[in-house]
Amino acid sequence: MQFASPQDAANAILAGNVRAAARLMRMLDDRIDGATDVLRQLYPHTGRAKVLGITGNPGSGKSTLTARLIGHYRKLGLRVGVLAIDPSSPFSGGAILGDRIRMMEFANDPNVFIRSLATRGALGGLSRSTNDIVHVLDAMGHDVVLIETVGVGQDEIDIVRTADTTIVVLVPGLGDDIQAIKAGILEIADIFVVNKADLDGADRTVGDLRGLQTLMGEMPDWLPPIVRTVAARNEGVDALAEAVNQHADFLKTSPTSQVRAQNRATFAVGGLVREQVWRGVDAWLRQSAEGQQLVLDVTARRVDPYLAAQTALAQTLQTNPQILA
Amino acid sequence: MQFASPQDAANAILAGNVRAAARLMRMLDDRIDGATDVLRQLYPHTGRAKVLGITGNPGSGKSTLTARLIGHYRKLGLRVGVLAIDPSSPFSGGAILGDRIRMMEFANDPNVFIRSLATRGALGGLSRSTNDIVHVLDAMGHDVVLIETVGVGQDEIDIVRTADTTIVVLVPGLGDDIQAIKAGILEIADIFVVNKADLDGADRTVGDLRGLQTLMGEMPDWLPPIVRTVAARNEGVDALAEAVNQHADFLKTSPTSQVRAQNRATFAVGGLVREQVWRGVDAWLRQSAEGQQLVLDVTARRVDPYLAAQTALAQTLQTNPQILA
Repeated sequence: MQFASPQDAANAILAGNVRAAARLMRMLDDRIDGATDVLRQLYPHTGRAKVLGITGNPGSGKSTLTARLIGHYRKLGLRVGVLAIDPSSPFSGGAILGDRIRMMEFANDPNVFIRSLATRGALGGLSRSTNDIVHVLDAMGHDVVLIETVGVGQDEIDIVRTADTTIVVLVPGLGDDIQAIKAGILEIADIFVVNKADLDGADRTVGDLRGLQTLMGEMPDWLPPIVRTVAARNEGVDALAEAVNQHADFLKTSPTSQVRAQNRATFAVGGLVREQVWRGVDAWLRQSAEGQQLVLDVTARRVDPYLAAQTALAQTLQTNPQILA
Repeated sequence: MQFASPQDAANAILAGNVRAAARLMRMLDDRIDGATDVLRQLYPHTGRAKVLGITGNPGSGKSTLTARLIGHYRKLGLRVGVLAIDPSSPFSGGAILGDRIRMMEFANDPNVFIRSLATRGALGGLSRSTNDIVHVLDAMGHDVVLIETVGVGQDEIDIVRTADTTIVVLVPGLGDDIQAIKAGILEIADIFVVNKADLDGADRTVGDLRGLQTLMGEMPDWLPPIVRTVAARNEGVDALAEAVNQHADFLKTSPTSQVRAQNRATFAVGGLVREQVWRGVDAWLRQSAEGQQLVLDVTARRVDPYLAAQTALAQTLQTNPQILA
């Protein structure tokens, strides 16, 4: 089902029409052409939600913590949107993981909107999809948008760039202390949570983190606080929310806040270009006779991939001028 | 230090000159312009190496297994190139992980060339860098190239698309059986290894994998074998190498082999375009006055990112016509 017009759809979503929002999200999933027109209408109405990214290894209790944060913000009367990035298996078809069950208590709350996004088949489009859905949740009038990701790879780092405040969740005693603090995870964290802080080893994990922060040498303008929680017992969640508020205050007053917003915009625009160009080039290579011949030539090593890349881009833009228009 | 000419450099590398190869790899790291010209000269001489991808969660013993495979192929008199993808921390500056120590026994073997590649700062270029380095290792005359990655995210899935045969390493009893089999990992595996197979729970892990394979329903033309190893004691490595040989035989005879090679070429060409365009757009947005103004407009929500993406691509191509030339 299509919308009568992009403007109609945008108006419905801005008025908080949940069905219209869900329909737009399905259109975005299916890459239906008109979806971007609706997003463009919504964009001037975004930027009001507080966007929190929550990341950490599987088993760190992120989903429980996310559910507790939903509960916290609901008690304050705030509307909460949730984007759960699902590491879907090819067999489950993107089924919600078992530990997402705690979020189900909000399934009938009209002021909580939960959306899952599968990570498969993304063709580099996962961070675009994340941005798009956050824009929709924001435009719908949610006060807080929570993005929960699984894992700490480059995907997740790209995703959390969408957030105002990034929360990295660790747990004591998993034996992967060093592994968890890898690949730039320290750089992306605005707040660290040591969840399951009632377990042995919590002090050591906190100490390890403090040590790494000290090693960073220069004194940053924001030193990520380390918050201890026991999400399963709803302990430490108020302290976490307080740390989020302090970070929001910091963002309002710090000159780095504007730099951060600009970096985010640069990354979002660059990501859109990348995704659109890749999609176009992929289609040209797979679906045009010239593209298929070029692939055969590269496969047979008659043409090198570096020359082929130039040819493919030029031909894609020539046959799809709307990418530039 | 530059090369006298791309042709000179390519000739030195094709003759097995290790210093020339190392120099080219440093040029590739630093994105020095002439590097691609050398790669283009090398490309017609690639395609002879057997490329194996080895992936799995941290702690699965991949590095030990990789070292055992190096030893296996060295005993057969083969030359081995290794590309180790490092999840470098911002503090270690890409230092080799502790468990890579086992590879060090080959540090003085002139027939083993080990190269590390950090995953940070990749700007979407990690799979390009992987492809480039594999081409160099291949052109140098290595019979086998091993690519070892950490983790099982989209990055790693992209990387292993470079390989002829992908080995996914699991371990029993980590409690992450379901998490480990996430995000398409089943689809990318040509061979499963259950390492540390002397631990309790190995039978269950093998059984879980068999169950998942059964669930896949349709009978594929290649059912990934499940090999048990104890890499620390060098057990099961011959069986693994035998499975690799069987997969190579399958690739030679199966019609899907050609499809696979074409998909790999399509992915490589698309990835090159994506990386080059993103790099160009990122530079235009950050370094040109018009680009910086556009970022400010997006940040202030005067221009939406979808329109900005079109503008940025068009302007980038206009100011950098060599991307298309």
